[in-house]
Amino acid sequence: MPKKPEITRTETIARTRLFRVEQVDLRFSNGREVCYERLRGSSAGAVLVVPLLDARTVLLIREYAAAVERYELALPKGRIEEGETPLAAANREIMEEVGYGAKTLTPLKCVTLAPGYFNHTTHVVLAQDLYPERIPGDEPEAIEVVPWSLDELPALCALEECTEARSIAALYLVREFLQSSRGRA
Amino acid sequence: MPKKPEITRTETIARTRLFRVEQVDLRFSNGREVCYERLRGSSAGAVLVVPLLDARTVLLIREYAAAVERYELALPKGRIEEGETPLAAANREIMEEVGYGAKTLTPLKCVTLAPGYFNHTTHVVLAQDLYPERIPGDEPEAIEVVPWSLDELPALCALEECTEARSIAALYLVREFLQSSRGRA
Repeated sequence: MPKKPEITRTETIARTRLFRVEQVDLRFSNGREVCYERLRGSSAGAVLVVPLLDARTVLLIREYAAAVERYELALPKGRIEEGETPLAAANREIMEEVGYGAKTLTPLKCVTLAPGYFNHTTHVVLAQDLYPERIPGDEPEAIEVVPWSLDELPALCALEECTEARSIAALYLVREFLQSSRGRA
Repeated sequence: MPKKPEITRTETIARTRLFRVEQVDLRFSNGREVCYERLRGSSAGAVLVVPLLDARTVLLIREYAAAVERYELALPKGRIEEGETPLAAANREIMEEVGYGAKTLTPLKCVTLAPGYFNHTTHVVLAQDLYPERIPGDEPEAIEVVPWSLDELPALCALEECTEARSIAALYLVREFLQSSRGRA
């Protein structure tokens, strides 16, 4: 493993309600000095939930994505609130977005978006043993819930409305996890 | 498919060398009005390349990721430069980062990071029929190249230094693509 560069200076150069941009000066172990920009999230990270209605059916949501200006078909997700654990956040998000709670919540993996630029972490959580339970969320319109079979992931990934790398990664990780669980059983 | 909200106003509220934060006012079809922040990338998007050295061996790189302040094991990637096609960018990036060019480049999928907040698009490209070719890049230190078998993706995803959702998604998409190609052959 190479020796980490030394951070010689950091400075916040822009700040909005959601985003903070930091400039960071680095000296690599070979003496090379560089100046990068990076984005600091304002939150404790996020959860991305894979709610399994039965052994092979995952519940996706179709929600408006303001940055790409179209509806995106993806897994339910949201920020972890102050004082909340990742698993509690996962259960709250599926109650708000898909109308189910989960008796079994399994943390699968922490993923990043673009670790060179964002320090944002997303906890991928598998939710099983679902029961109907809805709590109000902060969504501006009703969210459409779309059941999808884990056996049909290639067809899902072929859709232009399904692009989010975190959701694609999480669905394949869950499929692999369930296969290896069955193998062990 | 629901009716898209109307964008009633956008305003740039922060701008740095790499990032531009925009505030956007939206009116949903149910009349609800909201104000979101979103990040606008300064580039034409990025490429993420899956270089296949042989039928089952992918070439990963271990590179310092400034936002998470550690080395990350992931696929080679980079911005698409002005006037460059995604496939040309993919070939340039692997020449710079892994020391190979590719005779066969296949676009597999366009993925997003977090489409509610970033409009950034990444073109996932499969690179096959590799040949040794190195061109200088802008990396501050030598990049370590790590061969990995596509049959060992679960072991890769279990590593704490492998977190990037785009890379995990791309590796599973390639494994699926190769399986279905073999099925058709």
